[in-house]
Amino acid sequence: MAEENTVFIGKKPIMNYVLAVVTQFNSGSDEVIIKARGKTIGRAVDVAEITRHRFIPDAKVKDIQISTEQLTSEDGHTANVSSIEIFLTR
Amino acid sequence: MAEENTVFIGKKPIMNYVLAVVTQFNSGSDEVIIKARGKTIGRAVDVAEITRHRFIPDAKVKDIQISTEQLTSEDGHTANVSSIEIFLTR
Repeated sequence: MAEENTVFIGKKPIMNYVLAVVTQFNSGSDEVIIKARGKTIGRAVDVAEITRHRFIPDAKVKDIQISTEQLTSEDGHTANVSSIEIFLTR
Repeated sequence: MAEENTVFIGKKPIMNYVLAVVTQFNSGSDEVIIKARGKTIGRAVDVAEITRHRFIPDAKVKDIQISTEQLTSEDGHTANVSSIEIFLTR
């Protein structure tokens, strides 16, 4: 579960993240974790699906974890935000 | 996996869907499936998290499945859209 095997999903074009995952696998990783929070959760699922359907056919979804993270803004307010971790293995 | 135990996530206020899930459990279901496609996937995770943290503390995420569905529009174009199914049990 090293950070180097984790791809964090943000607001860049979706194929950037797919490429990051594919690169991880092609450089020898046997597990890549796709992680996202809040509004990017749907994009994490897209990245996992595109990776395994188009680029790494033998990649499998080993596990999916969801959780709630508490974020504190600079003015001290806290907000709960959902997060997802998709564990892809080959 | 009967349809009656499935809550489909749309664009209504999030608490509507939480209430639907809670109602299913309180009417005797031991499993409720939260299903969403595309942009509402993040909301499905929110519904699962709010349900188990605030309303049904003994509810657990038994499994999460992701897949790709092919949608055909009226003019014959097809588009791939990711989907998620979250299986909550108590």
